[in-house]
Amino acid sequence: MSVTTERHLNGVDTTTLFATIDAVRQHPEAAQFQFRARNDWVSGTHSRGRFPGFFGAGAEHVHATDTVVDADHPAVLVGQDNGPTPAELLLNALASCLMAGLGNIAAARGVELHGVRCDVEGDIDLRGILGIDDTVRNGFSAIRVRFSVDGEAEAEQLASLVGQSVRRSAVYDVLTNGTTVSVDVA
Amino acid sequence: MSVTTERHLNGVDTTTLFATIDAVRQHPEAAQFQFRARNDWVSGTHSRGRFPGFFGAGAEHVHATDTVVDADHPAVLVGQDNGPTPAELLLNALASCLMAGLGNIAAARGVELHGVRCDVEGDIDLRGILGIDDTVRNGFSAIRVRFSVDGEAEAEQLASLVGQSVRRSAVYDVLTNGTTVSVDVA
Repeated sequence: MSVTTERHLNGVDTTTLFATIDAVRQHPEAAQFQFRARNDWVSGTHSRGRFPGFFGAGAEHVHATDTVVDADHPAVLVGQDNGPTPAELLLNALASCLMAGLGNIAAARGVELHGVRCDVEGDIDLRGILGIDDTVRNGFSAIRVRFSVDGEAEAEQLASLVGQSVRRSAVYDVLTNGTTVSVDVA
Repeated sequence: MSVTTERHLNGVDTTTLFATIDAVRQHPEAAQFQFRARNDWVSGTHSRGRFPGFFGAGAEHVHATDTVVDADHPAVLVGQDNGPTPAELLLNALASCLMAGLGNIAAARGVELHGVRCDVEGDIDLRGILGIDDTVRNGFSAIRVRFSVDGEAEAEQLASLVGQSVRRSAVYDVLTNGTTVSVDVA
């Protein structure tokens, strides 16, 4: 394996990754990011999400890819099913965060990945959001994540990639520990 | 305004909505839902999310719409920017949940909506996930939501729609209060 290949293991430019971490260590202000999302109501429970850009490393950025995510409630919840539910989008955010971390960590540790799959499921009693029982919480009572990792390492080492990803996941942190959310109306 | 129009105000079939809530009140087991997401690693920090279906109202369901959400890190974070970041997808999940609730609540209260926009921003110090400073949390330190609601009601009444949506939002609950997340490796 050439040096160039090693530096881009699993599609990760580890040379630049390590250089970026070193740069941020020297300039902590570069680590201050603000992420954003915009959502427009379409009809009923159907809405359309976009990602207008973010601030980070001292500058404003726009994404190279224009992503639109439609969300809706399904027919069984009196929606038109024009997209996944917000609850499913939350599970997807968690899965993609753990997956991105795993990709970076595997490359940093020199573990070649062949494929990774992540299944997430969340239990929810809808009597909360339907206003039927105030003792029932609105959100998920429990979320379970199941990873299947295929790569050039022992099972224990592959599992430790997942463990480290969990320890460094932004979305996992918010979902397990919560954060402050303010809501204003213009 | 005809009765038919009233029943479908803002694209919400309120007759069926109220009937569904009554039915769940009589049969609490119908309120037990399990939502799911599946994510496959593509390369580096790039992954692809799908929504294979859900359990609820005593049966399995698949969505009418096939949604694929690509997620990635941007170039400034050493990714290929093939989609929004997982952190932005989390903000989008929150916005879409509050929006779906607002659509239902406005219809239930007989408030005609012309348009609703929701902007969400979240502050994050990436020294957490980069492993530079263990005193910095991985996730958002704060999330701010800003609604702009245009509809046939006084500003105070429009604002109260947002307030009620927050009180009945599954995603808002999880983001502010946290929940249990288990992670397993097959």
